[in-house]
Amino acid sequence: MALSVEKTSSGREYKVKDLSQADFGRLELDLAEVEMPGLMACRTEFGPSQPFKGARISGSLHMTIQTAVLIETLTALGAEGETLEEYWWCTERCLDWGAGGGPDLIVDDGGDATLLIHEGVKAEEEFEKSGKVPDPESTDNPEFKIVLTIIRDGLKTDAHKYRKMKERLVGVSEETTTGVKRLYQMQESGTLLFPAINVNDSVTKSKFDNLYGCRHSLPDGLMRATDVMIAGKVAVVCGYGDVGKGCAAALKQAGARVIVTEIDPICALQALMEGIQILTLEDVVSEADIFVTTTGNKDIIMVDHMRKMKNNAIVCNIGHFDNEIDMNGLETYPGVKRITIKPQTDRWVFPETKTGIIVLAEGRLMNLGCATGHPSFVMSCSFTNQVIAQLELWNEKATGKYEKKVYVLPKHLDEKVAALHLGKLGARLTKLTKSQSDYISIPVEGPYKPAAYRY
Amino acid sequence: MALSVEKTSSGREYKVKDLSQADFGRLELDLAEVEMPGLMACRTEFGPSQPFKGARISGSLHMTIQTAVLIETLTALGAEGETLEEYWWCTERCLDWGAGGGPDLIVDDGGDATLLIHEGVKAEEEFEKSGKVPDPESTDNPEFKIVLTIIRDGLKTDAHKYRKMKERLVGVSEETTTGVKRLYQMQESGTLLFPAINVNDSVTKSKFDNLYGCRHSLPDGLMRATDVMIAGKVAVVCGYGDVGKGCAAALKQAGARVIVTEIDPICALQALMEGIQILTLEDVVSEADIFVTTTGNKDIIMVDHMRKMKNNAIVCNIGHFDNEIDMNGLETYPGVKRITIKPQTDRWVFPETKTGIIVLAEGRLMNLGCATGHPSFVMSCSFTNQVIAQLELWNEKATGKYEKKVYVLPKHLDEKVAALHLGKLGARLTKLTKSQSDYISIPVEGPYKPAAYRY
Amino acid sequence: MALSVEKTSSGREYKVKDLSQADFGRLELDLAEVEMPGLMACRTEFGPSQPFKGARISGSLHMTIQTAVLIETLTALGAEGETLEEYWWCTERCLDWGAGGGPDLIVDDGGDATLLIHEGVKAEEEFEKSGKVPDPESTDNPEFKIVLTIIRDGLKTDAHKYRKMKERLVGVSEETTTGVKRLYQMQESGTLLFPAINVNDSVTKSKFDNLYGCRHSLPDGLMRATDVMIAGKVAVVCGYGDVGKGCAAALKQAGARVIVTEIDPICALQALMEGIQILTLEDVVSEADIFVTTTGNKDIIMVDHMRKMKNNAIVCNIGHFDNEIDMNGLETYPGVKRITIKPQTDRWVFPETKTGIIVLAEGRLMNLGCATGHPSFVMSCSFTNQVIAQLELWNEKATGKYEKKVYVLPKHLDEKVAALHLGKLGARLTKLTKSQSDYISIPVEGPYKPAAYRY
Amino acid sequence: MALSVEKTSSGREYKVKDLSQADFGRLELDLAEVEMPGLMACRTEFGPSQPFKGARISGSLHMTIQTAVLIETLTALGAEGETLEEYWWCTERCLDWGAGGGPDLIVDDGGDATLLIHEGVKAEEEFEKSGKVPDPESTDNPEFKIVLTIIRDGLKTDAHKYRKMKERLVGVSEETTTGVKRLYQMQESGTLLFPAINVNDSVTKSKFDNLYGCRHSLPDGLMRATDVMIAGKVAVVCGYGDVGKGCAAALKQAGARVIVTEIDPICALQALMEGIQILTLEDVVSEADIFVTTTGNKDIIMVDHMRKMKNNAIVCNIGHFDNEIDMNGLETYPGVKRITIKPQTDRWVFPETKTGIIVLAEGRLMNLGCATGHPSFVMSCSFTNQVIAQLELWNEKATGKYEKKVYVLPKHLDEKVAALHLGKLGARLTKLTKSQSDYISIPVEGPYKPAAYRY
Repeated sequence: MALSVEKTSSGREYKVKDLSQADFGRLELDLAEVEMPGLMACRTEFGPSQPFKGARISGSLHMTIQTAVLIETLTALGAEGETLEEYWWCTERCLDWGAGGGPDLIVDDGGDATLLIHEGVKAEEEFEKSGKVPDPESTDNPEFKIVLTIIRDGLKTDAHKYRKMKERLVGVSEETTTGVKRLYQMQESGTLLFPAINVNDSVTKSKFDNLYGCRHSLPDGLMRATDVMIAGKVAVVCGYGDVGKGCAAALKQAGARVIVTEIDPICALQALMEGIQILTLEDVVSEADIFVTTTGNKDIIMVDHMRKMKNNAIVCNIGHFDNEIDMNGLETYPGVKRITIKPQTDRWVFPETKTGIIVLAEGRLMNLGCATGHPSFVMSCSFTNQVIAQLELWNEKATGKYEKKVYVLPKHLDEKVAALHLGKLGARLTKLTKSQSDYISIPVEGPYKPAAYRY
Repeated sequence: MALSVEKTSSGREYKVKDLSQADFGRLELDLAEVEMPGLMACRTEFGPSQPFKGARISGSLHMTIQTAVLIETLTALGAEGETLEEYWWCTERCLDWGAGGGPDLIVDDGGDATLLIHEGVKAEEEFEKSGKVPDPESTDNPEFKIVLTIIRDGLKTDAHKYRKMKERLVGVSEETTTGVKRLYQMQESGTLLFPAINVNDSVTKSKFDNLYGCRHSLPDGLMRATDVMIAGKVAVVCGYGDVGKGCAAALKQAGARVIVTEIDPICALQALMEGIQILTLEDVVSEADIFVTTTGNKDIIMVDHMRKMKNNAIVCNIGHFDNEIDMNGLETYPGVKRITIKPQTDRWVFPETKTGIIVLAEGRLMNLGCATGHPSFVMSCSFTNQVIAQLELWNEKATGKYEKKVYVLPKHLDEKVAALHLGKLGARLTKLTKSQSDYISIPVEGPYKPAAYRY
Repeated sequence: MALSVEKTSSGREYKVKDLSQADFGRLELDLAEVEMPGLMACRTEFGPSQPFKGARISGSLHMTIQTAVLIETLTALGAEGETLEEYWWCTERCLDWGAGGGPDLIVDDGGDATLLIHEGVKAEEEFEKSGKVPDPESTDNPEFKIVLTIIRDGLKTDAHKYRKMKERLVGVSEETTTGVKRLYQMQESGTLLFPAINVNDSVTKSKFDNLYGCRHSLPDGLMRATDVMIAGKVAVVCGYGDVGKGCAAALKQAGARVIVTEIDPICALQALMEGIQILTLEDVVSEADIFVTTTGNKDIIMVDHMRKMKNNAIVCNIGHFDNEIDMNGLETYPGVKRITIKPQTDRWVFPETKTGIIVLAEGRLMNLGCATGHPSFVMSCSFTNQVIAQLELWNEKATGKYEKKVYVLPKHLDEKVAALHLGKLGARLTKLTKSQSDYISIPVEGPYKPAAYRY
Repeated sequence: MALSVEKTSSGREYKVKDLSQADFGRLELDLAEVEMPGLMACRTEFGPSQPFKGARISGSLHMTIQTAVLIETLTALGAEGETLEEYWWCTERCLDWGAGGGPDLIVDDGGDATLLIHEGVKAEEEFEKSGKVPDPESTDNPEFKIVLTIIRDGLKTDAHKYRKMKERLVGVSEETTTGVKRLYQMQESGTLLFPAINVNDSVTKSKFDNLYGCRHSLPDGLMRATDVMIAGKVAVVCGYGDVGKGCAAALKQAGARVIVTEIDPICALQALMEGIQILTLEDVVSEADIFVTTTGNKDIIMVDHMRKMKNNAIVCNIGHFDNEIDMNGLETYPGVKRITIKPQTDRWVFPETKTGIIVLAEGRLMNLGCATGHPSFVMSCSFTNQVIAQLELWNEKATGKYEKKVYVLPKHLDEKVAALHLGKLGARLTKLTKSQSDYISIPVEGPYKPAAYRY
């Protein structure tokens, strides 16, 4: 169900690309909707009052079936919704709402739309002051080169475009670690031009993305890529944060003996309390069958480790970038031979031992490369956070509640996102009585926990 | 790794079909060998003494990478090994070892080779007596029609062929429920022509095929077919035999709430002891998200159940035949609409409710239809049983130990199969001392358990 | 609730010994009844028809609250029920029903009543033939010495007593490994005098006594004896039969890292499939925190192992006799010092290292010594087997179905025992349809599995 | 090992009370030391440098074996350590270090010592100003009445005592929820007289006290109090915070079917992701066998619920106060009859149904009432936090780092507490390289996580 979809000219329909049958596209949407109960519950609860009536929302998102369900949800709540393709010119296009200026709200994923506006405003001001236009050659970063080019070209037709956009913009909600990091940097340097809500650190976003999502998709990726029986194997999980916890749980439950490596003594102690051994990679490198990196750091499994592994040991990364595994060291190892078993599954044979290891997804995220990424239910959690954040920004647009700063989604809205998913799972919540509420000094309607609560 | 392979003309090499690179075929074999440690351990332990020297073994098996590892193992132990394709004429071909007569031993899978010989001998004797040849039109069973045709045609060239075969044949080992059932019927009717070893009921065969195999392949099939998040769902497993136990464990561990239906109070009590609720299908049909049949019986989930399920409930079978699910009732339901989401994954929409259910693999075994069947490690257990059974038949060929009956693989050989898999998993067994052995009246080298031990 | 109870003179009431309040005794019975749903269901189902009307049943059982519930159940079904205390003279007494001869049925536990009758008959016949009386001094076994004394003394008053008993006796049901072993020996030597049903090997007896019972009582005993936190510890379980499986599961679930030692490769492979490492005791003796023997064999943990253990390592036995742990070697170790921490919990300090180990229950069964043995629910399974076996013997007394042999409880009755426990646990069984029953050739009312089914 | 101990006159030795053998007391300490590896590691790491040289530390703690290990640790680090008994006059006594004034540091548990000093200072100032002495009759709170009495009596002999104490005092560390709450109230009202470190919210304190501690002690308490078989039962856990998570995990692993009640949708969603059903108490009150409250709120299980429960349903509290269960409603229910089965285990019979429920520990914390509270390992985590906090206060006494505020223990010290426990559990941590440290902007030596990290 990772099929890509596109919006039709009507602006209200999505068609599955590369598939001839329109029915098929709708079918995929139907299926995704059942698995995205948070978004569907938003439609039921907020649809009738049309809270986004009159709001223009630009979504800077990769188009997938799940994204289509998000956008249909925003429009079901009254918004006009533009969607973006994956390239920078699309980002620019989608911010363009014609003569009337830009969007009221932005749903951002990676911070691209936010970056473009900030750079645009900076360039327009510089241009007004000194006549200077941005020089794409001033940067080595190929992405940023394109951004500067787009802005430079735009200056010729309208030198106030991004500033008009900024004026109109009520705020942005952002769901990725990368995008959020950039927002906090802008806040710190005092350059943030509009309010931003960080939904990346909502409990309902982060636990699903990391813990529950990877618990699902690690075995999925392993089985699709290698068909290996996990039971009976020794599996090493590097890191025991939320991703590592999810991976270790999945492997343990599938019958593997799991060993964890950690730098953080608290996380190490947590693993021990679950009966999981804590060792260093060096201790176990020649005995284990499966290696998974989950750290978000670099240089976790080096080529020198890989040389010592058992024949056909499986090495994969579900943490962050592909530099968790020393792919460069592997690729440049003298005499190493790469044999592609199938796409995303390579065997690398070392010349001195003639034994090989199996590397998944070329060291990149294996749940994306070898499986289909997060299931729709996980995306439902992320996207419901987005919808709720957009509602909050829009409802408070006139109150001044949100300044030009980055805000974590308020706890009671994080709880709201969870609540919107419970019905589909058949759950029935208990309600605080007034007297209980008074006793523990917690409002009947929540939030039920302090900000730092660890869940 | 479910790629099909074929034997080359040399008789000692296997090439992956439909793949241009010879390297690729070998690579697949290399990978499978690592995951089939029982067969590799057989080569190490028995290879040097060449116990099958001079033996002709015909394997009536579907050709897969795993089968290739089996055949290479038999030949590594000194056998000449013929392999069979999937159709009856291949069965006949593979029993034909030229002028010298047939094979010494048969590795059977479904009882086809055994059936052909028995029917051949019967026909030759009838022909000798009455001149009558088999009439393919005498049966409605299309498979049996072919068998009779092959035998009829063979009679013209050699009317003693199957009888010569029978004379030479030392025995057969059989690994399927179906094949074993037929053998016991022949034994009962006194028509069995040679000794047979039933490896289907070895612990190391049945637990892996059923419990561990399905614990692996049920979630694999579910994820490949539907990408559904299992956590949080309500899953109904019909039946709590070994297959059901494996499925329930896998679903529970993935975070589903599992409900089991059972007819057998002992199995029901076992489920309860694991915290699993026992209800009838009627009790939960409208609340559950996933339904899995594991019974080996028919008419488990009827169209009338399916009509009452939630929209996009998933229905699948990992038990035996596709009649566990009432596919006929579904297909003939007035106005029902079938929409193929992708191969092996169909949505069936009921006209009155407009809601649909997702049926996997058209009701047939979903781990074969939607995933790649058993992982190599499971096949290693089955095939090591075959090798050990063949060795036993061959070693005892002159002793009269095995009469024209069906034998379960002796317990100590079942234990041997297990032992051959331990090294790869890093296990170190304890040895009984002589004094301990005397104390519990169990030989130092096993068998360690009585025949009826339940494991 | 391990309080001992005694039958009152009325023969229908039981009073808790050593407790002054009669209410208290009844209360304990009330509590036990709720936890013994199989026996209560027997009363409901069979009580109205009074199947034991006229039957005298002698129970040779240790008196506990659970035994009292059993006896009240037998009487509720119409029997006259005698109960036995723990010594041989009680056994003799309880077989004595006055002038009318002995009991019709015996519920035996350890085979004592059975032994007494067999020895009695043998002695009477010898006495009649040669005038010789048994000589208690002819044996070193102190138990047997008492048996011979009782018989010798009895001969003086009635030299036909045991033979009259034998004539009347319909059969015995026996629930212990020891008692069953003796019965099979009698059967083999042709000396068994009446039919016997072995309920020890019923699934509903053995799985509860071993797997589920020990999964419950091992952590119970550990916590009561030592208050040790199990999470984070390394625990070694010697043996992975049903007892070992229960112990390993309990320790794993409590957060220990479990290592198993095994002699049987099949059981070892089962452990590996659950992610449990298989090593020898020597491999881990100096690293582990908790050691549990479950083998039923002797000399598992020797003093030489114990000397190498970590300070305050815990050593205990839940298998069979105390010789699983080398208590003799420990007690006679030169200079060893025993310090009793509390009853059933000793610290043994080795002189050379000054470090000590904690031995529970002096090496005897730790769930009896340090906890309260099996919970009532487990005893309900055992005792319901007894009731069902008694009913079977009584109902078939005139049909000749049971000869002077040992019979395992028929599968459908084993299933009946399970069924009688389901209601209390809220389970709802599915019923086979006639058409399904025909399809798999299994009666609608069971038995549902072949005799050798492994569960 | 919950034996109470007392300090000997030498001030360096602890003797087990009510036990005649001195050996026995030392033995208990030896056992506890093995289970309190964090404290022992403190002695090894910090002992040689005697960081507390010259420091007087008063510990306002209940005396247990574990407390004795704490105090011996503080003295091993160079401190003079006074210990307190359980009553207010002891609190006063232990703050009295003779002429030289009070302690330098306080280890508080419940905030008693802190309260006494604050009230003392307040009273002295009032007395100096107006001559008024505190009036014990001014309060209804019996505890506070004693505090005022002690202060009033003290004023007569030394009217500057508490103010001198305050001057000398470097700070306090506090480990209970109650004590911490009071500290924050003082901080808020600006009345806090010295720095305070809240160790209650350290990860290594709270996870062990709540999650891991209760996962251990809930089944312990259930089994000791009732001997009930947990497998097969339906258990309701009210609340799914850390305590509830621990309880639910323990019950599930023991084979119960667990149902959770929750008010917080996020926690509810977490339960669902583990396959646990979320219902209201009303939904399941008449079906469940075991009820556990874990909420920290009041009025969770009311007498009206209890009336509807099954006969002999077990009701217990492991949350906070006994008002989680409506004990008052139960006790005053017309005609209700209480029968004590054994201490801490009562059966309450309702007059109209004659059925009864089993209430543990009179509704108070059942792991304290029916088992022995937290195991030593859990206390090791709490007390190592205390030692580390004391070290931090003492080391920073001259730097002004800590003002008259409440501080959570800094993350790197929380991590230190964890690290001090790893060695005993055989763990081997990985170390960040300089280059990895730079890459993720985290110091090589930690802290490794942001303050709000959820673990």
